[in-house]
Amino acid sequence: MFGEILEKVRRTAPLIHNITNYVTVNDCANILLACGASPIMADDLDEVEEITSICGGLNINIGTLNKNTIESMLKAGKKANELGHPVVLDPVGAGASKLRTSTALRLLNEIRLSVIRGNISEIKTLAYGAGTTKGVDADVADKVTEETLDSTIEFAREFAVRTGSVIIITGAIDIAADKDRAFCIRNGHPFMGSVTGTGCQLSAMIAAYVTANRENALQAAAAAVCAMGLCGEKAFARMTELDGNASYRNYIIDAVYRLTPDELDRGAKYEMR
Amino acid sequence: MFGEILEKVRRTAPLIHNITNYVTVNDCANILLACGASPIMADDLDEVEEITSICGGLNINIGTLNKNTIESMLKAGKKANELGHPVVLDPVGAGASKLRTSTALRLLNEIRLSVIRGNISEIKTLAYGAGTTKGVDADVADKVTEETLDSTIEFAREFAVRTGSVIIITGAIDIAADKDRAFCIRNGHPFMGSVTGTGCQLSAMIAAYVTANRENALQAAAAAVCAMGLCGEKAFARMTELDGNASYRNYIIDAVYRLTPDELDRGAKYEMR
Amino acid sequence: MFGEILEKVRRTAPLIHNITNYVTVNDCANILLACGASPIMADDLDEVEEITSICGGLNINIGTLNKNTIESMLKAGKKANELGHPVVLDPVGAGASKLRTSTALRLLNEIRLSVIRGNISEIKTLAYGAGTTKGVDADVADKVTEETLDSTIEFAREFAVRTGSVIIITGAIDIAADKDRAFCIRNGHPFMGSVTGTGCQLSAMIAAYVTANRENALQAAAAAVCAMGLCGEKAFARMTELDGNASYRNYIIDAVYRLTPDELDRGAKYEMR
Repeated sequence: MFGEILEKVRRTAPLIHNITNYVTVNDCANILLACGASPIMADDLDEVEEITSICGGLNINIGTLNKNTIESMLKAGKKANELGHPVVLDPVGAGASKLRTSTALRLLNEIRLSVIRGNISEIKTLAYGAGTTKGVDADVADKVTEETLDSTIEFAREFAVRTGSVIIITGAIDIAADKDRAFCIRNGHPFMGSVTGTGCQLSAMIAAYVTANRENALQAAAAAVCAMGLCGEKAFARMTELDGNASYRNYIIDAVYRLTPDELDRGAKYEMR
Repeated sequence: MFGEILEKVRRTAPLIHNITNYVTVNDCANILLACGASPIMADDLDEVEEITSICGGLNINIGTLNKNTIESMLKAGKKANELGHPVVLDPVGAGASKLRTSTALRLLNEIRLSVIRGNISEIKTLAYGAGTTKGVDADVADKVTEETLDSTIEFAREFAVRTGSVIIITGAIDIAADKDRAFCIRNGHPFMGSVTGTGCQLSAMIAAYVTANRENALQAAAAAVCAMGLCGEKAFARMTELDGNASYRNYIIDAVYRLTPDELDRGAKYEMR
Repeated sequence: MFGEILEKVRRTAPLIHNITNYVTVNDCANILLACGASPIMADDLDEVEEITSICGGLNINIGTLNKNTIESMLKAGKKANELGHPVVLDPVGAGASKLRTSTALRLLNEIRLSVIRGNISEIKTLAYGAGTTKGVDADVADKVTEETLDSTIEFAREFAVRTGSVIIITGAIDIAADKDRAFCIRNGHPFMGSVTGTGCQLSAMIAAYVTANRENALQAAAAAVCAMGLCGEKAFARMTELDGNASYRNYIIDAVYRLTPDELDRGAKYEMR
């Protein structure tokens, strides 16, 4: 099933509009090309509606937000909604500053989001709102473990019901949930945390997968999570004893480029809950 | 001949002022170093004139333009004109939004450009102006092929006459034309399209080649196009079965670093028209 | 001694707030991860105080400064001072434009800087002020050599006395000085100059080392300089005949990731003056 989803990304080559941070933007562009999609980056208020209009999907990432780009995110998101394009939100650092939390909440409230992807802290900040942010941050420092898995899935599903979005919580175990179902995904490698922006790259890739498979957003997003994790595993297998996180960064994107539908079908490790 | 042009880049190590996008800026800096030049990136309105003044050439790329940097591009371009420095324009995405089209046209009208480099859509947008942009975009989606080569060369030459610029149209076949002559260049590899910013990198490198060889702008620009394409070929030859577009990106820049004048002379594949 | 300093970076994993340029920001993030620290990039005026507050140290780099981020640098720096966090300044291009010089001087005057790291031109510009910048730039074009070493150390020490900062001057020979002592460091490889941003990366790494070893800022900064230079040597040893500056960039960060405390102790080449 996931193999067909990837095949459709490759066949339709969706054009993805990215309003994203300047730290990991190059990797986001290259991973979109690697998976078979095409990237456009544009964040000026005067052009984001037009750029979104010529694209198939929109990826919003608040990693280095600033006053100008926040308005651009809102404007592009509304246009994408008007056109029925999928919109992915990556609320990088929500909870770490009032600006990030309030921006993420504005995006959540003013735009229909197809997918929200973050770590557990970021997603809880969005779900519980700005008021309790600091406490939530402290509470959620722990990774999602077998012990907290069921309650985290329940939390993700409730947030999916409330927002109408697919909720992706990434960590040691990844969760992809909509209002009805949840995937628990066990692909990936801990070393991925030593490369800046693997989360940003995943969000960009989710935008591509979902744009190419709009009729099936949950499965498309889950397929992207499996694909990224599987490529993290394959990239790790390629490491020599001189390689570190810089080579690993390249190997992950290389693996995304080389990933075949068949490999994805065979390598995806998930269960439904 | 191209070998001597490269030798002069290495010998004179031109300092290039870049006002460019935040997606591919790091690769532009590293490819400038790889070819023997030095990069400076600066885009604040209050410093672009001074920075341009200490450099030998200016590279303007509108890939992620915004209201502040547009004014900086114009100011830097006028200063470069005043000083007689070569100016290269890369009109990334001209035709994709009114802001890009109108900015590219303002730069074309207000600045004497030594070289304009883009794909066929971008260059046609500049040549035909904003009014017909959408139609032009649709018409020019096709690659430059053997069938359309003569008419495209004619178009490039006419645009060169009108602007006084060297016109570079890159694609499956690359064209470099001034008012008198045209190079058809057949270096390169299709896989270069899977790396974000190979066009941006080429524009930066053209700025270096032309700055070091000002008496000979057409040949210098054509040499840079051949060099980039040849390095794309050499980099592809180095690919293993695990490598993808991320490793390829590095191999291209590595090849630019290793390229010798003699290799460039022997490997350049072009004919004059 | 330097080994213990590195061990403490790894053990305490300091979170570093970076307000830095968009050219080399990705490499700065990955080298911070490589050395055992964690990066956050944030530059909007409305969030820099909060972000600095959750971090342990602040790294300010003026490589692509603009009017908005200058105010953010000052605000973040004052907050870091208030909280007693180490602050590193990398005055990229000070002397190349009035905006850079005056910004670097404002940062120097309004913020207590733990460490200032630059090349000899940048540091002299800061020490002698804007008035004499052009002349100073011309005078200091020469590298620090054995002949000028003693006078340069004396200059660094005097500037350290005046500012209360650790002064790091990097070049063929690196100098790390506070008011009492100076390290002359002979690690590194000339090829590091062919990679954009090795200086920026070093400044980020100094911020991590000093944040984890606050009781010992001079030695921590000197350890970071040795570590970066040693990794440049190790990375160079790994180069094949096809590799150029792009692969070297990756190998340096890889080497930082792989560097062990014992290797640093054995490989550090310095003398005290």
